[in-house]
Amino acid sequence: MKMNNPIGVFDSGVGGLTVAREIMRQLPGESLVYFGDTARVPYGSKSKQTVLKYSRQIVRFLKTKNVKAIVVACNTASALALDEIAQELDIPIIGVVKPGAKMAVQTTKTGNVGVIGTESTIKSGIYNEYIRELNPDVTVVGKACPLFVPLVEEGLLEDRVTDDIVSRYLEVMREYKVDSLVMGCTHYPLIRNAIKRYVGEEVNLVNPAFETAKCLKEMLAEQGMLNVSKGKPQYEYYVSDGVDKFISFADSVLPCHVTETTIVDIESY
Amino acid sequence: MKMNNPIGVFDSGVGGLTVAREIMRQLPGESLVYFGDTARVPYGSKSKQTVLKYSRQIVRFLKTKNVKAIVVACNTASALALDEIAQELDIPIIGVVKPGAKMAVQTTKTGNVGVIGTESTIKSGIYNEYIRELNPDVTVVGKACPLFVPLVEEGLLEDRVTDDIVSRYLEVMREYKVDSLVMGCTHYPLIRNAIKRYVGEEVNLVNPAFETAKCLKEMLAEQGMLNVSKGKPQYEYYVSDGVDKFISFADSVLPCHVTETTIVDIESY
Repeated sequence: MKMNNPIGVFDSGVGGLTVAREIMRQLPGESLVYFGDTARVPYGSKSKQTVLKYSRQIVRFLKTKNVKAIVVACNTASALALDEIAQELDIPIIGVVKPGAKMAVQTTKTGNVGVIGTESTIKSGIYNEYIRELNPDVTVVGKACPLFVPLVEEGLLEDRVTDDIVSRYLEVMREYKVDSLVMGCTHYPLIRNAIKRYVGEEVNLVNPAFETAKCLKEMLAEQGMLNVSKGKPQYEYYVSDGVDKFISFADSVLPCHVTETTIVDIESY
Repeated sequence: MKMNNPIGVFDSGVGGLTVAREIMRQLPGESLVYFGDTARVPYGSKSKQTVLKYSRQIVRFLKTKNVKAIVVACNTASALALDEIAQELDIPIIGVVKPGAKMAVQTTKTGNVGVIGTESTIKSGIYNEYIRELNPDVTVVGKACPLFVPLVEEGLLEDRVTDDIVSRYLEVMREYKVDSLVMGCTHYPLIRNAIKRYVGEEVNLVNPAFETAKCLKEMLAEQGMLNVSKGKPQYEYYVSDGVDKFISFADSVLPCHVTETTIVDIESY
């Protein structure tokens, strides 16, 4: 595997672009191949079996692009599919759950950590598992927040309805005096302000996108796989549906303009 | 084709069960094969190309069950895929859009008809097209309501947040003095009360599920395809993901208990 081969990044849709953005910032020498499964989004309400099947198809597609490593930017796919896929794969793969869990454990003082995410991510109990592996004394409070993604996608980032829903979902975090809260879904950092207003300034909000890019850098460095060629990185984008919508969202998130995005018939992989 | 063969009914998920229920009520002699694409739900934000591809796969699956006719219970699939599929098919197929459009035209007095639905249904302009074919003098006011489905699925049927969102989406219906409003998505009748509270008692709410069952009955009768065997009808259920969730929803909607539901690998059709 060549060091200057690209890194594959995939998500159920557009949310993983926030992870791609962090990788572009923290690893500016690396080329990326991004795949967003915009035809079959969202993953958050699907079963493990289905998310695993979809993730395997995407990994097979990314392998055709000769990626040297894969980042699962989707929390649900990281929670439900990463362990199995890692065993089947001959290149390194990391998800967003472990890095997020690690930072939550490092930053809590009260020992009460909160995790918010999709229905499937929370039901999987994987954040709980990772966090308690790192520190069995930590109490983990998980809460599924299924309306957050639709509210973000409807653009209600600063809105009384969003504040109202935030207060209902996160009431339990106040009750348990959580002081470190993992935003376990790529869309949630977009309503960071609303979350912060409710839980208070003293609660540390963990953004797994940032932590994942940091972990990826460490992993590539350890394995001697960092791209040190100083060439201009190449970014390629693939989706399973809705190119125009994708480009418009990507342009609002990424530091660079996305000129081309290609449709992939992902079911055939 | 035998008269006592089943009717195929499909939807992007569970919402189409409200159409199946109406068929069970109005055509109690007919057997049904229901397919819900619960793995790839929702269709409402997908492109025409993708919805057409998924609908073709489902029709191929239903054909293996020897259905004598097909009902597209999903508004989005009816809007984006029905015309093409009807041309490819050798059995009758009807959707929910035309019956809903017909009733809206019959009931309006002001000549101002409203249509609410998913992003893709409204963008397709198909309700507008059908309604104006029936009566070119009618004004059609379309409005996409992307938060309605997530609110229904979160169970917020009687809730201040739902009332708030209803008032934002439907403000335009008051402005245009709409007196007939098509609930162009299978989930919407579940928040009928909230909609009625906002638009007022004088606005007629059209439920395409009811009209579709009526049209199906007329069509089968005309073609001599009604099941007159007086045998007990058989109901079969198939989904692409999440059997338990499906059964639990089906039990809350249907007049009969669903004992068995089978997972189908729909991508292979």
